[in-house]
Amino acid sequence: MKRTSRDIRTANRYEVLRQIIAVSPTSRQELAAATGLSLATVATLVGELLDLRLITEVGFEDSAGGRPRGLVAVDTSGGALIGVDIAETYVHAELFDLGLNVLARAEEEVRPGASRPEQVAGQVVAAVGSVVARAGADAAGRVLGVGVSMPGQVDRDTAVVEYAANWGWRDVPLLDLLAEHLPYPLYLDNPLRACTVAELWFGAARGRSDAVVVNLGTGVGAGLALGGGLHRGVSNSAGEWGHTTLVLDGRPCHCGGQGCVETYVGAPGIMRNLRELSPHSPLLRSADQTATIDALAAAVAANDPVALDALRDTARYLGAAISDLINLLNPEVVVLSSWVAARLGEPLLREVRAAVARRALGRPLAATEIVLSPIPTDPVSLGAATFALEGVLRSAGQRTGPGTAPRAGHPRTVAPAG
Amino acid sequence: MKRTSRDIRTANRYEVLRQIIAVSPTSRQELAAATGLSLATVATLVGELLDLRLITEVGFEDSAGGRPRGLVAVDTSGGALIGVDIAETYVHAELFDLGLNVLARAEEEVRPGASRPEQVAGQVVAAVGSVVARAGADAAGRVLGVGVSMPGQVDRDTAVVEYAANWGWRDVPLLDLLAEHLPYPLYLDNPLRACTVAELWFGAARGRSDAVVVNLGTGVGAGLALGGGLHRGVSNSAGEWGHTTLVLDGRPCHCGGQGCVETYVGAPGIMRNLRELSPHSPLLRSADQTATIDALAAAVAANDPVALDALRDTARYLGAAISDLINLLNPEVVVLSSWVAARLGEPLLREVRAAVARRALGRPLAATEIVLSPIPTDPVSLGAATFALEGVLRSAGQRTGPGTAPRAGHPRTVAPAG
Repeated sequence: MKRTSRDIRTANRYEVLRQIIAVSPTSRQELAAATGLSLATVATLVGELLDLRLITEVGFEDSAGGRPRGLVAVDTSGGALIGVDIAETYVHAELFDLGLNVLARAEEEVRPGASRPEQVAGQVVAAVGSVVARAGADAAGRVLGVGVSMPGQVDRDTAVVEYAANWGWRDVPLLDLLAEHLPYPLYLDNPLRACTVAELWFGAARGRSDAVVVNLGTGVGAGLALGGGLHRGVSNSAGEWGHTTLVLDGRPCHCGGQGCVETYVGAPGIMRNLRELSPHSPLLRSADQTATIDALAAAVAANDPVALDALRDTARYLGAAISDLINLLNPEVVVLSSWVAARLGEPLLREVRAAVARRALGRPLAATEIVLSPIPTDPVSLGAATFALEGVLRSAGQRTGPGTAPRAGHPRTVAPAG
Repeated sequence: MKRTSRDIRTANRYEVLRQIIAVSPTSRQELAAATGLSLATVATLVGELLDLRLITEVGFEDSAGGRPRGLVAVDTSGGALIGVDIAETYVHAELFDLGLNVLARAEEEVRPGASRPEQVAGQVVAAVGSVVARAGADAAGRVLGVGVSMPGQVDRDTAVVEYAANWGWRDVPLLDLLAEHLPYPLYLDNPLRACTVAELWFGAARGRSDAVVVNLGTGVGAGLALGGGLHRGVSNSAGEWGHTTLVLDGRPCHCGGQGCVETYVGAPGIMRNLRELSPHSPLLRSADQTATIDALAAAVAANDPVALDALRDTARYLGAAISDLINLLNPEVVVLSSWVAARLGEPLLREVRAAVARRALGRPLAATEIVLSPIPTDPVSLGAATFALEGVLRSAGQRTGPGTAPRAGHPRTVAPAG
C-alpha cells in the first residue's frame, strides 16, 4: 500500500535501465542528467544492473578535459525474455533479447471448444517451447522470465485468472498449470496493462510524466501511466474506461450497464455506428469484426461518404470519451493503441483530434498531445516480456549477493526451476 | 517531470510527519513500522523535522528488555500556519498550530462589485491580519507560511490565477499583490486540491494508497490522491470530473460542453433535477442555492416524497459518475466532500452507495468504500494551510544548515520577509 524504500529503489532501477535501452551506449553522467537522479544513485544502480548482467561495460568516451567516462550498454547477448499474448483464437509467443528485440516468434491456434484452462495452458507451453527452440541451442539457459498476458480480470499477486468472459473461466490458477512445464519465473497480467507498460518502456509514454494508453479493440480500456509508473489501482483493475458511461441509459453493454464507452467505440460498437447510418451498407457484408474494420479503413481511404460518416461518428464518441480522460487526468500524451486504432490509423487520429479540440477544457487540452502508438510489433507480447524484465529488476533487491541467477526472484507461483 | 531523489525525500518527509501528527507521541520504531521506511531513513527524517522545529523530543518509553526508545511529538507550541479560503462572497482565514488545530478564525465579506484583484487581495490581507492579532502577541513571528485557495485555474509555480470564472479574472498575479503586505512565504492553489490534501493528511484518504475526493458544491470536481500523493497532472489541472460527459448531448454546461456531470450533480443541477420532477415544488421558493439545498435536506428528513425522488434522481446521476471513477481508477476510498455533500449527508450517501452497487464493475466495487468526509472544520482552509506546511517540508532540503528559519524556503513569489 505504501511506497517503501524498496519500491523507490525498484522504480529508479526501471528508470535507469529504460534510459539505457533507449540510448546505448551511455555514461553514468548522461543517465543522471536524463533521469534527474544523483550521480551517486545512478552509479549504484548501474552497478546493480551490471551485477545482474543486464548491461555491460563497453569502453570509454572522452569528457572535455576530465577523466574518460565509462560507457555502458544493454547486454543483448545476455539474458532473454519471453512474452506470451493469449487471445480468443490464438496464443502468440515472442522471445526477446534484453534490448527487447524479437529473436523468435511462434503461434498456436486456440480452436473453438478447446479453451479449457488445461488446453490453453498446453498451447502456451507449446508456443514457449517453439520460440526457445527457434532461438538456438543455448536459449533455454538464458531465459530470465516469461510474462503472460491473459484477457480478463487477473490477480497478479496470486497469479490467478479471476474471470475471463470469453471462455467463462473463473478462478483459474493459470501460472500453476504452466509452472509444471515451464522452468522459468512466470508473471501474469492482462493485455491492457501489457500495452501500457510497452508504451511506458518503449513507446509514446516513455519519459512522460502522465500518459493514457487508449486501447481500441473488440473491448476497450485506458491504461494509466501516471508519475512515470503504471497505475494499477488498489486491486489491479484500474483502466476500465470501456465501462464508464458516455450516454446515460444508452446502448446496453455486456457488463450489465448501459451507455458504456465500449458500446460506441469498440469494434462491435463501430459496426453498430455504421449500421445505424446505413443499415444495408456493403461494408457490413461480413459478420467478422476484423474484416469489417478493414473494409471500413479501405472505404475511408477511397473517400466513401458512408465510411467517412461512420468514421466521424465514431470519432465524435471517442473524442468525447477521450476528452473525459484529458479533463480528469490532465495527461501529457494520449496514445491510441491496439488493432482498431492501427487499422483506422491517421484518418481516425485526425477526426479524434478535432473532436477532442471541440470538447476538452482549454488548460488540459493545451498540455496534451494525441498520437498513434509508435510500437511496430505486437505491443501485448512486448509488454508481457517487459513484466518479466520488471520482475528481474524487482527481485534484484532480494538477492544475497551479485551474480546470483535472477530466476530465483519470482515469489509465489513457481516451483523451483526443474 | 521526473521523480527525482529530492522528490522522494520530500514525499518521505510528508509521510513521516503525517504519521507523527496522527499519532503523537511516537517512536522512530513505530514510524518505521507504520510507513514501511527503514529505521535508518526514519531516523534521518526525524532529525530533519527536529531541526526544522516541527517536532520535539518528549521523553522515552520502555521497550521490552531493550534500550528505552526516544519519543517525538508535534511541536504545537512552535510554528503556526495560516490557510485562506477565498470564495465568491467571503474570504475566510484560519490560523493553525503544527498539529493543525485551529487557534484563530477571521472572515471578511466580498461584496458584489468589489471583486477586483486589488480589492480581494485587501480582504485577504485583512483576514490574515485578524487571525494573527487574535492568536496573540508572538503569533506573527511564528507563522511559517500562508496557503491561499482560490477557485479557478491557477498556476501554482508562477502563483498566477489564470482564470477565475466568477469574477472574470485572467492572469492575476495574486500572490504578488499579497506579498507587498504579508511578510510570509505564500502558496497558491485551488479549493479542489486543498480539500484533497486535507483528506490525504487528516481525513479519509490518510494512509490509503488511492483515493478520490468528490467535491460537491456549486461546481463539482474529483481530487485524485494516487499512490499516497496528490495527482496534479502535467499542468496542475487534473480533477475536472465536473466536465466529463455523463449524458452525451445532454444539458448545456457553462464550459461550452453538453451533458457534463456538473450539470446534474452540482447545486444548480440538483435544483434542476427537482424542478423537472416538480416544477412548482415549494422547495424551489428561493433562488438561493444554499437555502434550496438546506430545504431539500430538511424535506428528505421529513420523508417528503418529492424530496426523496429528487434525492434518488440526483443519486442516480451521481452514482453513475462515481462508478466511472471507480471503474477507471480502482480507488480504495471515495470521499464525498464540500457543502452539498455535508448538507445532504447520510441519506445522500445511502442512495449513492446503492446506485454505485448497481453500476460499478464487481472487482473494483469490492475494493472501494464510499464515505462522507470526516473533517469537522472547513477543509479548504485546512488544506490551504497544509500547502504551507508542505512548502516548509519541501524547502527543508534547500537549507544550508539546521535551525535556519523555514520562511526563506519559498522560491519565487515573495520578496524577502519585511
